[in-house]
Amino acid sequence: MKPMSRQIQLTAYPEGEIRVEHFHVVEVETPAPAPGEVLVRNLWTSVDPGMRLRLAAAGPAGYFAPFALNAPLDGIMTVGKVVETRIHGFAPGDIVWHAAGWRDFSVVRADEPALRGLGTLTKLDGSIARPEAYLGPLGGVGLTAYVGLLHVAELRDGDVVWVSAAAGAVGSLAAQMAKLRGHYVIGSAGSAAKVAYLRDELNIDAAFDYHDQPIDEQLSAAAPDGIDVYFDNVGGDHLEAALAALRRDGRAALCGAVSDYEGTPRGPRNLFQATANDLTLRGFRGSSHIHRFPELHRDMTRWLNEGLVKTRETVFDGLERAPEALVRMLAGETTGKTLVRVGGS
Amino acid sequence: MKPMSRQIQLTAYPEGEIRVEHFHVVEVETPAPAPGEVLVRNLWTSVDPGMRLRLAAAGPAGYFAPFALNAPLDGIMTVGKVVETRIHGFAPGDIVWHAAGWRDFSVVRADEPALRGLGTLTKLDGSIARPEAYLGPLGGVGLTAYVGLLHVAELRDGDVVWVSAAAGAVGSLAAQMAKLRGHYVIGSAGSAAKVAYLRDELNIDAAFDYHDQPIDEQLSAAAPDGIDVYFDNVGGDHLEAALAALRRDGRAALCGAVSDYEGTPRGPRNLFQATANDLTLRGFRGSSHIHRFPELHRDMTRWLNEGLVKTRETVFDGLERAPEALVRMLAGETTGKTLVRVGGS
Repeated sequence: MKPMSRQIQLTAYPEGEIRVEHFHVVEVETPAPAPGEVLVRNLWTSVDPGMRLRLAAAGPAGYFAPFALNAPLDGIMTVGKVVETRIHGFAPGDIVWHAAGWRDFSVVRADEPALRGLGTLTKLDGSIARPEAYLGPLGGVGLTAYVGLLHVAELRDGDVVWVSAAAGAVGSLAAQMAKLRGHYVIGSAGSAAKVAYLRDELNIDAAFDYHDQPIDEQLSAAAPDGIDVYFDNVGGDHLEAALAALRRDGRAALCGAVSDYEGTPRGPRNLFQATANDLTLRGFRGSSHIHRFPELHRDMTRWLNEGLVKTRETVFDGLERAPEALVRMLAGETTGKTLVRVGGS
Repeated sequence: MKPMSRQIQLTAYPEGEIRVEHFHVVEVETPAPAPGEVLVRNLWTSVDPGMRLRLAAAGPAGYFAPFALNAPLDGIMTVGKVVETRIHGFAPGDIVWHAAGWRDFSVVRADEPALRGLGTLTKLDGSIARPEAYLGPLGGVGLTAYVGLLHVAELRDGDVVWVSAAAGAVGSLAAQMAKLRGHYVIGSAGSAAKVAYLRDELNIDAAFDYHDQPIDEQLSAAAPDGIDVYFDNVGGDHLEAALAALRRDGRAALCGAVSDYEGTPRGPRNLFQATANDLTLRGFRGSSHIHRFPELHRDMTRWLNEGLVKTRETVFDGLERAPEALVRMLAGETTGKTLVRVGGS
């Protein structure tokens, strides 16, 4: 008798805000792996802001495809343990990642690229204490922060750096990496608790809650002479404030625009600042930089081991809570990386 | 008796559209040059879209400062002939450029930077037949097109290029330079006559009038597989169409946004396309790249001599017509470089 396996499926594309009612749990009999496949007991599955853009019949052109309705959700990074294998080189007990997430068990093909290569079935270092780190600092989240700061924004000596959503999964890593390089770093977030976290635990130089006062005023107070790099996770009014504050030859790494995901995006009305001040705005996806994973793993493993980079997770226990995790993350109620613990180890 | 000298001065910052009534002509007695100065009889003075941004009490931060009211307009490139000199190395009859424009005679100091170095008093090659070329392809206009295309947009082999306002001073040069490098080039403009000019005289591969049909549809028809480089002179709906059409790793050189200059700018609502497709938007000013003038002069002189780059001017005769020239250029009624012929040679 095969184990029964739960999957989260999407039943409708939301009009307006996403709610847990847009998802349901489906029980299926887990298929046996065919030749070239493994069966994985999933341990941790990811919840990312960009998923919101895939909950629509048509998302941004060129972005990850929309999730199908009433079908397994594909392209969500997940860490699990191989329980049955029909691939040479994979053994039961191996810790792997793959992109067939939001379900108890996944049957995954080898060498099947998902998420532009990011989700290809890969064996991980099973000796690390917390394999969920592969969904955080050692995974796409870490890669996004790393390449966004160092390669997309082309961080230069002396740059003053602002990171928005700095208590989030990507933002908290980007802010800490900039601090590690000796930069003056400003972080913004959406609650007093998050601001305290940035100041007291991550030692960010200046932090503010964007609800407290107009963003441009708080940014000016934190960086009276302007900024050189803006790591954008929010878009909208945050990006406008950055454009007003960026100094000549400044750079914005456009990582995400979560303030725009549930409504009609409003473009930055002061984009001419880019022309006036020779600014570069560069959009990017971590998944376009997977060739830098070795570089990330080399640096991040050391930083984590030496306590130079700290991480925090907001964990939701049980696969059935994945939709709730997504809704609460989009509402700004989570700190650090949002994870769902699917099953026991 | 000194010659009387006319100047154009601005009397009020416009609310809404600029009109000729916002300027007036003032007659002054031309001062004698002091030591370190020359007196220049101006021949040609420039009319540029970006001047519109300086006709406001407060313009974009970091851009050229607003024009003062009821004072000579400073920071407008001008070509003239030295008539009296108190600078070693300058002789009567020398052809020079400087930035003290929109007046009959200018007294100009040596080594006084204006417009971020672009307007420093400089002796030009007086043997060329048309010194006004130094306000066009051999001047800031040419430099802007050259660096925008080659260095800001980082033109790469095989790129499909769209230039907006392609019948304009900068656009027509950028489009022709891209053609010279063998690229497939799309040009857009605002009238059937301009489109005919692009197709028939400049041999641009595809050209359209942005009034005829929605821009995105005309762009798709001209480049069904998308574009790689967008040279933006317009902003607004043009930039939105470009963001939708730019392929992965595409680049936009943000040169100007003339559609936004007389109203409230509307930012591009689909800026997330930059994140989805790893796009770079880079603002720039030609004047930030003056170190590339020798490179421009080397290449452009050859292109002009060999007939590989063609230029067209819309000339307004008489200094008093400078405000009219500006108004009509902003209304889209001019083709190529807009110039005012100030005086006889």
